[in-house]
Amino acid sequence: MIYGHGGDTYKYGRGIIDFSANINPLGMPETVIRAARDADAGVYPDPKSRRLRSAIAGVTGVSSDDIICGNGAAALMFTLAAALRPKLTLIPEPAFSEYERAVKSVGSEVAYYAEDSGAAGAITGKTELVFICSPNNPTGYLIDRSSIRAAVERAAEFGAAVVVDECFNDFLDEPERYSVSGLTAEYKNLIVLRSFTKMYAMPGLRLGYMLCSDRGLIERMYSERQPWEISAPAEAAGTAACFAAEHAARTRAYIHTEREYIKRGFDRLGIRYMEPSANFIMFYHRPGLKEKLLKKNILIRSCSDFRGLGADCYRAAVRLHEENIMLIKALEELNG
Amino acid sequence: MIYGHGGDTYKYGRGIIDFSANINPLGMPETVIRAARDADAGVYPDPKSRRLRSAIAGVTGVSSDDIICGNGAAALMFTLAAALRPKLTLIPEPAFSEYERAVKSVGSEVAYYAEDSGAAGAITGKTELVFICSPNNPTGYLIDRSSIRAAVERAAEFGAAVVVDECFNDFLDEPERYSVSGLTAEYKNLIVLRSFTKMYAMPGLRLGYMLCSDRGLIERMYSERQPWEISAPAEAAGTAACFAAEHAARTRAYIHTEREYIKRGFDRLGIRYMEPSANFIMFYHRPGLKEKLLKKNILIRSCSDFRGLGADCYRAAVRLHEENIMLIKALEELNG
Repeated sequence: MIYGHGGDTYKYGRGIIDFSANINPLGMPETVIRAARDADAGVYPDPKSRRLRSAIAGVTGVSSDDIICGNGAAALMFTLAAALRPKLTLIPEPAFSEYERAVKSVGSEVAYYAEDSGAAGAITGKTELVFICSPNNPTGYLIDRSSIRAAVERAAEFGAAVVVDECFNDFLDEPERYSVSGLTAEYKNLIVLRSFTKMYAMPGLRLGYMLCSDRGLIERMYSERQPWEISAPAEAAGTAACFAAEHAARTRAYIHTEREYIKRGFDRLGIRYMEPSANFIMFYHRPGLKEKLLKKNILIRSCSDFRGLGADCYRAAVRLHEENIMLIKALEELNG
Repeated sequence: MIYGHGGDTYKYGRGIIDFSANINPLGMPETVIRAARDADAGVYPDPKSRRLRSAIAGVTGVSSDDIICGNGAAALMFTLAAALRPKLTLIPEPAFSEYERAVKSVGSEVAYYAEDSGAAGAITGKTELVFICSPNNPTGYLIDRSSIRAAVERAAEFGAAVVVDECFNDFLDEPERYSVSGLTAEYKNLIVLRSFTKMYAMPGLRLGYMLCSDRGLIERMYSERQPWEISAPAEAAGTAACFAAEHAARTRAYIHTEREYIKRGFDRLGIRYMEPSANFIMFYHRPGLKEKLLKKNILIRSCSDFRGLGADCYRAAVRLHEENIMLIKALEELNG
């Protein structure tokens, strides 16, 4: 298996500052940590995650019957692909590589579209599934709700489904303005993917969820997987996270300030970047930068394995202020 | 989703004594509890579970390259089915229902054989995958190693694979005598499934593993699923469990004694049962027994949804002595 993601601290060791994974630098809220630790590992998890789904219904306003949880958002992509078995899938460029792996695992062909040109125009009569990443990872590009509506409506004409990956929506300055969670009741072919991993800094617990009003599809997804998909610590942590809105608000403010700090640093150093919107920033630099920063114990994400991006593209997460200072300082030294 | 397994305490409430799930009544070892609680949920899990696989290699003697871990043994069944895509699968009768669900999710036809007559005789040129449950759940029937060898060799003639589910092997009086873990290096078409769930009483953490020397198959399984399948608490707990052999030995002795206690009780009450070998016992009683015991806050597993078993078949886990006393007492009262 070739591993092409951020967060591979197993390879680089724990002494390193990890800017390669887009995880909330403020960490897990205390209540979430406690919930995970105190979860009862001695009983089988609830196959329907009833307690968790009802908590998610509370925060999203979506009916709990329209929610299915998974062992991380990435697991839901594979289960969804198995339930839909699309023949042709439309994927944005650049994008998270698991979209492609998930649909190819069930034999789908893949076509690509530039995320900033909108998905709607790329949908044809042969399209069966469309991915939209909102905001885009790694570019940070923001997708208008109207553009998503257009894609969902055009897809509906052809009987295709649209997956909107909102795993980084929580970090936007105005999450509600961009989220289409509220539209799932209106469009049966709209599927919204969300994750607890990033905002609640719990990548090790594995928990994501999907919103969709096509209950037949949700039933098919349950039949494509084992009954005990979500662990007890994940369910408990996710339920607690639903009651930690204050943590998310505080994070958004912190990330906003730090994003501006990094932008100012990049501006000063003449480093070109894509306008960031969430908790990461994509920028351009000479090939080989990752290795040079590694010598300074800083791990960033090379984006050269993202389709459409070159060896001069990098992504850095927005981290704690003192860490962001170190990143800018290290880049400054390399510039000198 | 229809849920037909033991351990559904969500339906029956927590006040009940749960004989329906076959979990070690001595619970999780302290070291395993601590490892799960202290696991770092803030970093992505290692997609290759290197630390855990190396610990499993230590206890099984199988090369760590021949080991793949999963989100519970049931998850591995689905991933294996997706990687093999068998057209015809042979399943013992009676058996754990997830074998059938897993292979049907990839469109396999299913044929059945009586576990006590041996799998080898049922294998034909059309068979692509065979399940053997050793010891059988729910009957407790023990499968000789020679009978498994015969099945594996016959399957090899036809290019078929054999899965031996050893999830309850740990509870046998002589686990090594019946395990075929040591044969995977010899037979490339032999796949052994094992679980941490039962012996280490951690169904809520989700962890199982598969032993197989067909590394191409293991690679295909990785490509059929997301990269971060095993949570940090599960990996940490599993690694600690590999160093808790003493807990397993103590459990085996305890279970042996309690199994004998329950058998004596059944004998005295004239209750017919299958000779138990692991931590559960299948017995015969009047239909409606489950509901009658529920009124006494005792939950047993009705086996009527196991293929080939009738409404008079039940399964009870071997639990703590005081709980087993209560089971026998409750049955005595109903008999009177």
